[in-house]
Amino acid sequence: MIKIVEVGARDGLQNEKSILSTDDKFQFISLLCDAGLRAIEVTSFVKAPAIPQMADSVELYTKVKNELGDRGVAFPCLVPNMKGYETAKNLGVKEIALFTATSDSFTKKNINASVDESFDRMKEVADAAKRDGMLVRGYVSTAFGCPYEGTMDVKKLISVTKRLFELGVYEVSVGDTIGVATPMQVRSYIRALKSEFPIGKIAMHLHDTRGMAPTNIFVSLEEGITTFDSSAGGLGGCPYAKGATGNVATEDVWYLLNSQGLETGIDIKKLSEASQFILGRVNRQTESKFLRAYLNTGKV
Amino acid sequence: MIKIVEVGARDGLQNEKSILSTDDKFQFISLLCDAGLRAIEVTSFVKAPAIPQMADSVELYTKVKNELGDRGVAFPCLVPNMKGYETAKNLGVKEIALFTATSDSFTKKNINASVDESFDRMKEVADAAKRDGMLVRGYVSTAFGCPYEGTMDVKKLISVTKRLFELGVYEVSVGDTIGVATPMQVRSYIRALKSEFPIGKIAMHLHDTRGMAPTNIFVSLEEGITTFDSSAGGLGGCPYAKGATGNVATEDVWYLLNSQGLETGIDIKKLSEASQFILGRVNRQTESKFLRAYLNTGKV
Repeated sequence: MIKIVEVGARDGLQNEKSILSTDDKFQFISLLCDAGLRAIEVTSFVKAPAIPQMADSVELYTKVKNELGDRGVAFPCLVPNMKGYETAKNLGVKEIALFTATSDSFTKKNINASVDESFDRMKEVADAAKRDGMLVRGYVSTAFGCPYEGTMDVKKLISVTKRLFELGVYEVSVGDTIGVATPMQVRSYIRALKSEFPIGKIAMHLHDTRGMAPTNIFVSLEEGITTFDSSAGGLGGCPYAKGATGNVATEDVWYLLNSQGLETGIDIKKLSEASQFILGRVNRQTESKFLRAYLNTGKV
Repeated sequence: MIKIVEVGARDGLQNEKSILSTDDKFQFISLLCDAGLRAIEVTSFVKAPAIPQMADSVELYTKVKNELGDRGVAFPCLVPNMKGYETAKNLGVKEIALFTATSDSFTKKNINASVDESFDRMKEVADAAKRDGMLVRGYVSTAFGCPYEGTMDVKKLISVTKRLFELGVYEVSVGDTIGVATPMQVRSYIRALKSEFPIGKIAMHLHDTRGMAPTNIFVSLEEGITTFDSSAGGLGGCPYAKGATGNVATEDVWYLLNSQGLETGIDIKKLSEASQFILGRVNRQTESKFLRAYLNTGKV
């Protein structure tokens, strides 16, 4: 069984221009539950002006909790600081995600902090979460390459991953934020990670900016990775390359895994319905070639 | 060194709606030569009404021979029958390609012949080519799956490949005509081929209809394949799934090979210029995510 962490509602929508209503977002998450996804990132508790798409995070999470709370689905939320943490805690959020990167230039532009400073912020939140019995997941952005610093040394990834585990995260999601990872690099970086940490605690968060995500997932599977982040329909773009693809589509991940005989619990027909719904709402076509062929032919 | 057989000018344009001038086609082939391609399929000697895009095959080949004949590039042409062969011979074509498939339903719809009957036609041509000292390449369509018959048994591929080698072809190009091949299937079919034929005489002709071509190429490389067919910019669609991707883009093949440290002799900047030229002429965007990112960022 391979675990898929569906990030379309947060990471995906965050990179879409159209601001959706809370009802549309809720409907999307509800359809994702119907499709068999068992880990769905809901929202991010950031200050409203920072990311307009996340302005209704309290309303959205409340509705998800009230109406989908009994579906056996994990609904993690991104938390950037103690203010966000307090909001999450008050809403009864059970799992939060913290994020940093391997590149100082990247964290400075994104969260106005160096990588070290991001750890100061995260430590406060992680300590509180531990005290409150909340699950914490960690994201490492720019693990393979950074839009400002280029190729990132694997030593930085090892170091940041280690510090995240020291904070008490149960899993580290390794992000190819700008979609520059190559199969050879993925294999080599995972091997380095495996030599330091249990492979079952490492997830891969791949972008398909250069069409390499399926191959990188193939290599990740060969190296023993069993958790992948992805976005229904490939929702979300790449903010660092105009018009380019961002998150790998959950359908693409499913197609590869299914072809390898690996179970995900996903109903591809229902997943494609969730994707069609949300792509219609943000008014664009999917970048997933598999999804397009599937919708064209009605066959896998 | 990996050999790329560029099929954009024939297989690609054949599946594009816009009928181009001979000058545009020639200009495309000339730019492909500049980009370092060393095997460029030029045209198909079919009856003119059958494939309107190929109506100028004699004029195009003549121009290519006269103006690019000294560039050290192989310019194979597709030949469907003796009439086409005579045309090719009279023009001084040095290499021809013959085509069949593993599926009777497919050959019947495409060339109005069963697979067996296609071998009757091909034998006549192959014998003449042998007599005339012309190189012959063989194509097997629907090697993995057929739009009418579904998944194709590997035994059919082995049988058709064997018969092609018996005709005297120097290489067999194994085609995933509708882009349904999965990595596991590719690995297993190549292993079956390897047990019967020298791997160096097998080429892979993959379509990216479901985004799986790069992964299938990755697996093919692991299994020892050293020749790939592809189409600059991903020119050509898939006639069996409206709006879907056909031939894998040469740029995608280059990107994967380059990331694996494998040489192709291709200058990616010049190749992207050839693709931009021809995509502009057929008035569409590339389906290659790598090419889009490369054109956006100006960086590999």
